Amino acid sequence: MDATLPGVNASPALPPDNVFDWLDGEAGKRAEAGLTRRLRPRPAQPDELDLAGNDYLGLARDKRVAGAAAAAALRWGAGATGSRLVTGSTELHAELEHELARFCGAQAALVFSSGFAANLGAVTALSGSESAIVSDKYVHASLIEGCRLSRADVAAVAHSTPDAVRRALATRRKPRALVVTESIFSVDGDLAPLAELAGICREHSAALLVDDAHGLGVLGEGGRGAVYAAGLSAAPDVVTTCTLSKALGAQGGAVIGPRRVIRHLVETARSFIFDTALAPASAAAALAALGVLKSEPDLPAKATGNAANLAMQLKAAGLSVTLPEAAVISVRAPSPETAVGWAESCAEQGIRVACFRPPSVPDGVSRLRLTARADLTESDVDRAVKVVTATAPRDAT
Amino acid sequence: MDATLPGVNASPALPPDNVFDWLDGEAGKRAEAGLTRRLRPRPAQPDELDLAGNDYLGLARDKRVAGAAAAAALRWGAGATGSRLVTGSTELHAELEHELARFCGAQAALVFSSGFAANLGAVTALSGSESAIVSDKYVHASLIEGCRLSRADVAAVAHSTPDAVRRALATRRKPRALVVTESIFSVDGDLAPLAELAGICREHSAALLVDDAHGLGVLGEGGRGAVYAAGLSAAPDVVTTCTLSKALGAQGGAVIGPRRVIRHLVETARSFIFDTALAPASAAAALAALGVLKSEPDLPAKATGNAANLAMQLKAAGLSVTLPEAAVISVRAPSPETAVGWAESCAEQGIRVACFRPPSVPDGVSRLRLTARADLTESDVDRAVKVVTATAPRDAT
Repeated sequence: MDATLPGVNASPALPPDNVFDWLDGEAGKRAEAGLTRRLRPRPAQPDELDLAGNDYLGLARDKRVAGAAAAAALRWGAGATGSRLVTGSTELHAELEHELARFCGAQAALVFSSGFAANLGAVTALSGSESAIVSDKYVHASLIEGCRLSRADVAAVAHSTPDAVRRALATRRKPRALVVTESIFSVDGDLAPLAELAGICREHSAALLVDDAHGLGVLGEGGRGAVYAAGLSAAPDVVTTCTLSKALGAQGGAVIGPRRVIRHLVETARSFIFDTALAPASAAAALAALGVLKSEPDLPAKATGNAANLAMQLKAAGLSVTLPEAAVISVRAPSPETAVGWAESCAEQGIRVACFRPPSVPDGVSRLRLTARADLTESDVDRAVKVVTATAPRDAT
Repeated sequence: MDATLPGVNASPALPPDNVFDWLDGEAGKRAEAGLTRRLRPRPAQPDELDLAGNDYLGLARDKRVAGAAAAAALRWGAGATGSRLVTGSTELHAELEHELARFCGAQAALVFSSGFAANLGAVTALSGSESAIVSDKYVHASLIEGCRLSRADVAAVAHSTPDAVRRALATRRKPRALVVTESIFSVDGDLAPLAELAGICREHSAALLVDDAHGLGVLGEGGRGAVYAAGLSAAPDVVTTCTLSKALGAQGGAVIGPRRVIRHLVETARSFIFDTALAPASAAAALAALGVLKSEPDLPAKATGNAANLAMQLKAAGLSVTLPEAAVISVRAPSPETAVGWAESCAEQGIRVACFRPPSVPDGVSRLRLTARADLTESDVDRAVKVVTATAPRDAT
């Protein structure tokens, strides 16, 4: 190495074994803060009651849905063999897109390999250096990454505060604008004021992008989603993103909206163009789940009813609980450490709940996150209430 | 609206119908430049000979692989039901990670829902504001997006030019450094000088990240990949990313490397933490494909042999063809328009080839991209050569 070069490289090279030493330092800091996370692989049929997953309608293991996945793997192959613009688009993907758009009352839909990819693609392709993005500051990581990749002016505004959106739109310096929100926020389960946001967008020539990941299959007539429920799914200036991996029990994501938006995404969304297409089994599973929803339009109300019941009983027991707008319930914990301990105690007693804590919560508040499913029985709910209450840390009530 | 506000918002609001008019303007520009792209959904059993997909070993439709996918959907459910740190990690994911690491001769592996997500996660989690990234300028879009999200100083250096990497490392202003490359570059199929790059990294205390998407299952002993072939898969300062959707015939991606790197990704990679886990069917398919590779270690050589044969015959016919290092062959076309027409003519004669052109090629050169598979017959190759040669635009030879 040239000894006259400036700076950090004047020191002797690290041995290869030490190049990643800094990772151990970071791990140590996380351990000190009680933030270590570990994977805990589960069996196919867990003994515990699952109140942590996002399979809101219990369709992931439904025989019609899992059977469609199995049949598709045999008929279409285990993988799609290429990206959507090369060999990865099958007639199955096209059928799913058609049915998804029709179900939600929109012109068109486009399937991605994940909701994360759908959000990256929609935000980046529908903005750019001539755009301002006004985003609720509690939106999902994938939307935040999309904003960061967008080259747009990005304003992250106070959570569910329409006036903040209006102000940011009115004072933007770019001609185009995109307002970004979730419908049901994934951490607390609260619902954004979608109709009001759409009205504000219209005052300011902005488009509205709604991530309906936790609304599709749960809210709206027959599970058509929160955007449908707000009367916005056919709007020419509103775009919905969603996952196929929550209420629909499969894997993947989608963007749903005006035909010209979908056409634009096909041609410009990098997370669509440069990604292998969704596996046929997952596309078929999502399609079968839409079929189940159409034949059992009361299924979503069972999930929301169970969520309401669970939340009310936890609240009655003195816990600090949000009343759910969909199937997500948040229970506040006094600290990250007590949240972790609480979730572990629940697991020991056979109830799996999620523990959300910094840095993956936007407000720094630790909580248990419980999700309800359509197929919970009354005795499941009673048992869950009993265990979550009995294991609560002293200062949680 | 307050009339005293500055700028763009002084004009009257657009009607909702016109908010996305700008997309039509962009579509018009693409059409004028001959760059319109459309999805063409294919049937389950296409009549045409597929020389466009990435199913290099023909495993996507292999009964052992597709059968494993089907069985897993029935046993584990159509979806994983949640993110990896909540309910999405199954024993199947853990087994796949164990086998993948063992197969490649590394300490550990972590499965993502796509190769795109694996690249985003690896690049961002292994760099940061204290890091310099030195990236080959022809790397895949997902690596570029990772660099853009990383907060690191990023230098994109000349393609496959070790001296450029050395210079960038020597003059960096950050203490840590990550060198980013593909093994087999996806557009031209050329192989990066991995051993030389690793040596340069060691002179400069840098880590090396190699995307082996087109090498795994194709290069190295029994398909263990290009990083294994370079003797680097067990190195403490080298990290490999790959897809499960190419030679392994499934869907998903993975990061393979030192145990502490994998642990770090579990705790910090946002495209891992905030994404639904890979569907059980896809995990099982990839696991079965590894089993096939172990029992048929000569399979990869069939794919590379067919690629070499195809390329040599096309070159002998006078076309401008790269001699493939793996299973990807690039044939230069005089212009985007002639490339599109050429690929269409091939399709009309029953041969599906990919057409790569601006803006999705890094060098602005349009080409046909052909991929070979292990299961191509000699008569498939002969037919392909005949059709690609007969349909070549006049100035391609």
